[in-house]
Amino acid sequence: MAVGLDQSFELLPIRGIRLASADSGIAYGDRHDLVLMAIEPGSLTAAVFTTNAFCAAPVELARAHLARTAPRFLLINSGNANAGVGDQGLADALRCCQRVAHLGECSVEQVLPFSTGVIGERLPADRIVVALPELVATLKADGWSTAAAAIMTTDTVPKGVSKTIDMDGTRVTLTGIAKGAGMIRPNMATMLSFIATDVLISQRQLDDLLKQAVADSFNSITVDGDTSTNDACVLIATGQAGIVLEEDTGPAYEMFSRALAELMTDLAVSIVRDGEGATRFITIKVENAVDRDEARQVAYTVAHSPLVKTAFFAADPNWGRILAAVGRAGVDHLDTKRIAIFLDELPIVRAGAADSGYAEVAGQAVMQRPEITVRIVLNRGDQEAIVWTTDLSHDYVRINAEYRT
Amino acid sequence: MAVGLDQSFELLPIRGIRLASADSGIAYGDRHDLVLMAIEPGSLTAAVFTTNAFCAAPVELARAHLARTAPRFLLINSGNANAGVGDQGLADALRCCQRVAHLGECSVEQVLPFSTGVIGERLPADRIVVALPELVATLKADGWSTAAAAIMTTDTVPKGVSKTIDMDGTRVTLTGIAKGAGMIRPNMATMLSFIATDVLISQRQLDDLLKQAVADSFNSITVDGDTSTNDACVLIATGQAGIVLEEDTGPAYEMFSRALAELMTDLAVSIVRDGEGATRFITIKVENAVDRDEARQVAYTVAHSPLVKTAFFAADPNWGRILAAVGRAGVDHLDTKRIAIFLDELPIVRAGAADSGYAEVAGQAVMQRPEITVRIVLNRGDQEAIVWTTDLSHDYVRINAEYRT
Repeated sequence: MAVGLDQSFELLPIRGIRLASADSGIAYGDRHDLVLMAIEPGSLTAAVFTTNAFCAAPVELARAHLARTAPRFLLINSGNANAGVGDQGLADALRCCQRVAHLGECSVEQVLPFSTGVIGERLPADRIVVALPELVATLKADGWSTAAAAIMTTDTVPKGVSKTIDMDGTRVTLTGIAKGAGMIRPNMATMLSFIATDVLISQRQLDDLLKQAVADSFNSITVDGDTSTNDACVLIATGQAGIVLEEDTGPAYEMFSRALAELMTDLAVSIVRDGEGATRFITIKVENAVDRDEARQVAYTVAHSPLVKTAFFAADPNWGRILAAVGRAGVDHLDTKRIAIFLDELPIVRAGAADSGYAEVAGQAVMQRPEITVRIVLNRGDQEAIVWTTDLSHDYVRINAEYRT
Repeated sequence: MAVGLDQSFELLPIRGIRLASADSGIAYGDRHDLVLMAIEPGSLTAAVFTTNAFCAAPVELARAHLARTAPRFLLINSGNANAGVGDQGLADALRCCQRVAHLGECSVEQVLPFSTGVIGERLPADRIVVALPELVATLKADGWSTAAAAIMTTDTVPKGVSKTIDMDGTRVTLTGIAKGAGMIRPNMATMLSFIATDVLISQRQLDDLLKQAVADSFNSITVDGDTSTNDACVLIATGQAGIVLEEDTGPAYEMFSRALAELMTDLAVSIVRDGEGATRFITIKVENAVDRDEARQVAYTVAHSPLVKTAFFAADPNWGRILAAVGRAGVDHLDTKRIAIFLDELPIVRAGAADSGYAEVAGQAVMQRPEITVRIVLNRGDQEAIVWTTDLSHDYVRINAEYRT
C-alpha cells in the first residue's frame, strides 16, 4: 500500500559500523527479527527517545546506558516491544545486553537495547540470547539493507536512505534506516531509526544536530496520533572519514547539517508513505501563523481529524471538514475571515468562505492524486509548519483490528 | 448500528411549546428536514454554542438574537449546515428568520435559526421560505417525536428523552431531543439539542443550570474528536407548571437540577450509542486524578486513539494500546508505576504493568460485550472524569467516505 515509495534504494556502508541480522523466532513467520549493530571505538552516539510516560524497558535502559558511556553495540528486535511488563522487562533487556557485552568484550553499559512490536507480552530473551553468537560472528559493513527489513513490524517495505557529500574533496557518507507504520505520532523521536555517518564531530554538536533534524523530520509526521512507548532515534558518528566538523557554523557544518536533515526527512516521510492502510500521502502546510507552535497545532488538528482523513480516502473534496478542523484547533482569537485554504494549486477557501471560483469538479480532480498538499494560510504572522500524514482507509481499520490475530 | 438504544421512547408535551415539521427538500430523500418550534410569551431560553472558530451563520445569528430578547420561534433544518459560505450564509439565515417573524407576528430577533448537514454549500432558503406557512399552520404540542426525526443527519435513530418530577405535588415535565452521530466532540455544546421544561425559573438560573448540565453530558462525549461548526444546545423554561424555582439551593432546586442533568446525559449518551459506525459503547472513567482537567485529558486521549478504537471494534483486549494512550496524554510527572487499569471488573494493569492474574481469555470475554467500561486509576489525587465514546469500525470509514455521494 506504500504511497510513492522507491524500494530500490542502495544503502552505503559507513566506516566503523558493522551489522548482522537473524531470525530468532520472536516475530511471527519466517523472517529476520533481530539486529546487532557494532560500533567501532572512538565513535560518538546521540539519541532521542519517546516522551510517552509509559516508556518501554529498553528505552529506560538505553537512556541510562547512553548517559554513562559511548555505546559499542545496538541490539534491536522486532515482534515484541518489551513494554508494559514492569521490572521483568528491565531484567530481560539487561540479560540480553549482558550477553552481547560478554560476546563483544565490552561493558554492559556499552550495549543499547531497542524493541518494537506488541506491547504487554514478555520478551523471549532466551531466543535472543541463543541467536547472539551467530550475530556476532556474521557482522559485516554492508548489512544495512537486511537490518532495515529485520526491524519492520506492520511496515510493508523496508526504509533506508544513504547520502554522500563532498567536503573539501573528502567524501562523507550518511546512512540511515527506520521502521514504523502505526502508533506513529513521534514526539522527540520516532518509532525506531538508526543513522550513522563517518564524520568526526563533538558530542555536543552531535546532540544538537540530532535534536534540530528530529524536529523537522520525525517530529513532523503522524499516521494515527498515537505516540509509541518505544520511539527512539539514534545518530552515530564514527569519525573515520577524515573530516572534522569543528565549528557550529560555516559552510562545512551547514552542508553536513543540511544533508542530515534531508536524510532524516526522507526517512520520516517514508514512514508516512508506508503508514498503515495509506492510499494517499498528505502534506499539511500551515503558513503565516503567529508562531511555529500555532502552525503545528493547526496542522496536527487537520492531520488527526478522522473526517478529513476519510474524505481523502474517498477522494471527496469535502473541504468543510478541513475548515471545521482548523476552526477547532484551539488558536486564540483566530479571525476566520483572513483564512485561505488550497488543495495543491486549487484555491478552495478564501476570506474564510468557499472561494467564489471553486468548482467541485476541479476539487475532485485534485483529490484523485496520490499525493496532495493542503495549504492553510492563516494570514496573521510569518511562521509556518509542515506535517506529513496519511488518509484513513478501510485497510487501516482491517490492519489494526487484525493486528494480534 | 445504534448500540443499546431504546427507540420506543415517548416524548411528553411541554405546556407552552408547540412544534411542526415538514419535508422542504433540503435533505436527500423523502423525509422531514425542517422543524419550527413555537415558544409562548413569558418563557425564558438559555443556549450554548460551538467554540469552533469557524462557527456557522445560524450560530452567529442565533447568538446575536438571543442576546437581545427572549425567543418566540426556533427554526431548525437538517441537510445543510449553512457554514463556510461567508456573508451569504448570514443573509440566507436572516431571510428565513424574517419570514418566520412575519408569519408568527413577532420581531426577527425573536427567531433563532439552527442548521446541520453538509458544510460549504449554500442554504436553499427558497425551499425553507416556501415551506413555512404550512409549518406555522400545523404547530402542535405533541410534535416532539417527528421533530426528533426531522433533525437527523447520519443518525440512524431519532433521540429524545422525557422526564417528570413531582415537586410539592405538582408535576414538572422536561422533554429534550438531540441529533448527531459524526463530527462529535462537543465543546460548550453538542451538535443540536433542544430541551424544554415547564418550570418557572430566572434567566440567570436557567443559564447556570444549562452550563452545569452541559459539562457532564454533551461536553463529555466524543465520537471522532471533531468539534462541529454548528453545535448548539438550547434549554427553554415556559414556566407553565405553576412551580417557581426561587433558590439556587435546597431540595426543589436540587431535584430539578438532577432531573435536567440526567435528561441531558441520556441525550448525550444516545448520540454516542448512535455514533457513526458504532458497534461498541465505551465508557472511559479516569479516577484519582489531581484535578478534573487532567482526568478529562487522559480520558479523551484514550477515547480518541484510533488504535484503542480499532481494538474495541475487533474485540481484541490489546490493553497495551490503552496503556500507550495514557502514557502520551501529556500529564506532568505521571508515575506509571501507580497506575491501574480495568476492563469492566477485570484488572488488566496493576502498578503500571500487566496484572499478574490477567489471562487473555478473560480479556477477550469482556471485549465481546457491546458495552464496556475502561477504568483508569491514576492514584495521584481524588478527582475523576467520565467520557463516553465508540469504537472505530469499517462502517465508520464507509459512512464518512460515502457521506456526500
